[in-house]
Amino acid sequence: MFKMVAQTTFPPSKPTKISPDPYYLKERPKQWHIRDDPITWSNWYKHINWLHTPLLIGIPAVGFYGLFTTPLTTYTAIWAVIYYFITGLGITAGYHRLWAHRAYKASRPFEIFLILASSGAVEGSIRWWVRDHRAHHRYTDTDKDPYNAHKGLFYSHLGWMILKQNPNQIGRADISDLNADPLIVLQHKLYGLFAIGMGFVVPTIVAGLGWGDYWGGFYYAALLRLTFVHHATFCVNSLAHYLGDHTFDDRRTPRDHFITAILSLGEGYHNFHHEFPQDYRNAIRFYQYDPTKWLIKILSYFGLTQHLKKFPDNEIKKGKFLMEQKKLDEKKVRLHWGVEISKLPVLTFEEFQEGAQKKNWICIEGIIHDVSSFIDEHPGGRTFLTSSIGKDMTTAFNGGVYDHSNAARNLMSNFRVGVIAGGGEVEHRKTK
Amino acid sequence: MFKMVAQTTFPPSKPTKISPDPYYLKERPKQWHIRDDPITWSNWYKHINWLHTPLLIGIPAVGFYGLFTTPLTTYTAIWAVIYYFITGLGITAGYHRLWAHRAYKASRPFEIFLILASSGAVEGSIRWWVRDHRAHHRYTDTDKDPYNAHKGLFYSHLGWMILKQNPNQIGRADISDLNADPLIVLQHKLYGLFAIGMGFVVPTIVAGLGWGDYWGGFYYAALLRLTFVHHATFCVNSLAHYLGDHTFDDRRTPRDHFITAILSLGEGYHNFHHEFPQDYRNAIRFYQYDPTKWLIKILSYFGLTQHLKKFPDNEIKKGKFLMEQKKLDEKKVRLHWGVEISKLPVLTFEEFQEGAQKKNWICIEGIIHDVSSFIDEHPGGRTFLTSSIGKDMTTAFNGGVYDHSNAARNLMSNFRVGVIAGGGEVEHRKTK
Ligand code: HEM
Ligand code: HEM
Ligand SMILES: [Fe+2]
Ligand SMILES: [Fe+2]
Ligand SMILES: [Fe+2]
Ligand SMILES: [Fe+2]
Repeated sequence: MFKMVAQTTFPPSKPTKISPDPYYLKERPKQWHIRDDPITWSNWYKHINWLHTPLLIGIPAVGFYGLFTTPLTTYTAIWAVIYYFITGLGITAGYHRLWAHRAYKASRPFEIFLILASSGAVEGSIRWWVRDHRAHHRYTDTDKDPYNAHKGLFYSHLGWMILKQNPNQIGRADISDLNADPLIVLQHKLYGLFAIGMGFVVPTIVAGLGWGDYWGGFYYAALLRLTFVHHATFCVNSLAHYLGDHTFDDRRTPRDHFITAILSLGEGYHNFHHEFPQDYRNAIRFYQYDPTKWLIKILSYFGLTQHLKKFPDNEIKKGKFLMEQKKLDEKKVRLHWGVEISKLPVLTFEEFQEGAQKKNWICIEGIIHDVSSFIDEHPGGRTFLTSSIGKDMTTAFNGGVYDHSNAARNLMSNFRVGVIAGGGEVEHRKTK
Repeated sequence: MFKMVAQTTFPPSKPTKISPDPYYLKERPKQWHIRDDPITWSNWYKHINWLHTPLLIGIPAVGFYGLFTTPLTTYTAIWAVIYYFITGLGITAGYHRLWAHRAYKASRPFEIFLILASSGAVEGSIRWWVRDHRAHHRYTDTDKDPYNAHKGLFYSHLGWMILKQNPNQIGRADISDLNADPLIVLQHKLYGLFAIGMGFVVPTIVAGLGWGDYWGGFYYAALLRLTFVHHATFCVNSLAHYLGDHTFDDRRTPRDHFITAILSLGEGYHNFHHEFPQDYRNAIRFYQYDPTKWLIKILSYFGLTQHLKKFPDNEIKKGKFLMEQKKLDEKKVRLHWGVEISKLPVLTFEEFQEGAQKKNWICIEGIIHDVSSFIDEHPGGRTFLTSSIGKDMTTAFNGGVYDHSNAARNLMSNFRVGVIAGGGEVEHRKTK
């Protein structure tokens, strides 16, 4: 019969042609790693990722130096903004929605454009980025999540890159689809060339050959633009797990907020995204900012993108509905709803009438209410209540005298003291 | 025993000293009235209220004439705004919350101030106004409601005053409390004097004696200010029954909206008000505009107002909760939730396995799902589903392989085709 072990391995993926880097292996031998040890004064430098850290500090530092030494020309400013959109969309439409989530299919020319554009964002190779991102979705908020939001805002923004990653801890993810694509493998192998060329050389040269502003191109379109793209993207891992609404699910950290969306070219509807990661959209309403979605959609009219995946509308609404219901249920338990009917003593109508000679009891809908505290508060006046004591006032309460509001009905539930044997039937029997 | 007839008459009120005007009588003889007939070309002028109509047209008309002929001085402008607040609050804090709803108690000096201030709003005597308003609350949206919103926006704003009221139709309301107050009876008897004095003479004379601007006082502080106070108050009967949210009840027309609140010195949270009319507040949140509430509250620190009535917070929240639940329930029925489990055919586990040789059946949580349409769409990949056919994948679906999202669970419900005899117990029995 069916074996449990069959469930816990991945389906066989196509054999890969690249070297067996243990980081990507499905069955890794468990070896000691420096990150298995705690950080101390004597070993801290071994915990640091000495590739990422200098870059993450150096690029903005040199950029800021340029900001104060090199004047910004109009052309260069426009070019820096355009190149921000090109490289930023390379990450969101390429790395994220196309390669990490396969939310749509891209024709080869557009794919090549995306490989080049996204390399200019200098966020690591597609293979590296996607592997971590798939693990992030699969193991969100756990130790296996590379940017686990439970480790704090700074950790999920930068900390996870400044420190080395522990291959014994980070969850595994299948990237056999990427290994099967020679262009993606090429970008991985020659990543240094791609990053330097698209991240620094191209923005500098365009400004230099275009309007003679090499230094402006270098400082503004390369370094400062890159710093902005970096931190905007990092916000999706940090801010988008801290700021905003739990529209579809509140068991995990991702949240929806338009500020994160504006920073990250539309990736800020992150609760939606974690719930429906294969959807090519992050924002589902037309008025929400999601230029990545707009780009993918527009290109589909030109045949450059196809098979745009949408989660069925009914299922999205169901998700939202269930979350709203959950929030409402939480509200409900915080309110007082009067004594439960099943916990009330049961009296006969005669016992009720007898008791009402001493107590301010009124029977409405088969339930006995003690209105002592309410006689002077009754908006309809004292007399209506005092003249009702010992009587069944169901009809009067429901329109016979006055059709009471929901508010009155809710209020009444606080005065419950007993149930009439026979319940709602009583009025009918006693008044005929 | 308890007699129904006792319920349908009002408690005996103190005998009143004023003339028995049939309009206020509790037991009115049913006499023919012109409004019992339909409006025709030959009788329309008999339907018109020839007191209200000329005033409602004449006051703004003369005011507009002044607007274009008399320059507005700074002092007069300030005075007109101040007098708008004085007379407007006279209506909202006096006519409405104090006398119509008895939402708080006012000490005699403040009551006298309110009688004078509210007379300057020229909206009829307290007795006349309160009687209609109590009927409006008691019979909201019915033929007995003097400003029945179902008769249209114009009718509830002005129409009901332009036409005569039909005493055979308008619901009765008890105003014995007002009849017992000699000052209120006095204001009713001498209403013409009060209205002319406070509505026109005082605003004109203050501007005249104060800074020599008699005409400005007359046009701006009297006529135009009065036009504004009128229509702002009328909006509570019209706009507040059309614009905004049904926060507490949606069976009737009143609605909550801040625009109406801003126009009407805080009376725009009208859904709340109809649900909790004895509450001295209309807006319950500190950031909502309700200067009438602020005034009543501030004066309570000086002993000028007492016994400010508040509906218990728990009951207000309950009202809101029930409305939210109702709206959510309406959302729920518009969504598809998959075939109900009770309507599915019941199969043994062996029948399921047999059927799965021809059909793409997977069993999860005791329910059989046909995943044919989903195999190529499964975000986890084809192989996981194809290798699961004919098996119980409950554990795999719930974390054994991948802990699926709510979204996945909702989606799955669309694929239901049958139930396993024994239900959720099956997995346990079959996999051990
Ligand atoms: C414990 C039971 C009762 C509660 C909690 C209650 C509460 C209320 C409340 C909150 C209102 C204000 C309007 C509304 O919210 O609907 C009201 C109005 C009224 N009640 Fe009651 N009530 C009770 C029993 C009765 C009974 C037994 C009678 C009649 C015999 C009665 C007669 C009226 C009338 C005539 C009004 C209308 C006042 C008006 O707007 O003119 N009530 N009641
Ligand atoms: C009809 C039943 C199923 C439905 C509707 C379904 C639906 C989904 C959906 C919507 C996702 C995307 C992530 C999420 O929303 O949670 C997903 C992911 C996944 N599913 Fe299923 N699934 C089903 C059955 C299964 C079964 C039986 C297995 C395993 C044997 C499986 C394995 C996976 C895996 C491993 C992923 C994760 C992909 C990743 O993020 O790496 N699914 N499934
Ligand atoms: Fe995330
Ligand atoms: Fe993602
Ligand atoms: Fe109203
Ligand atoms: Fe009212």
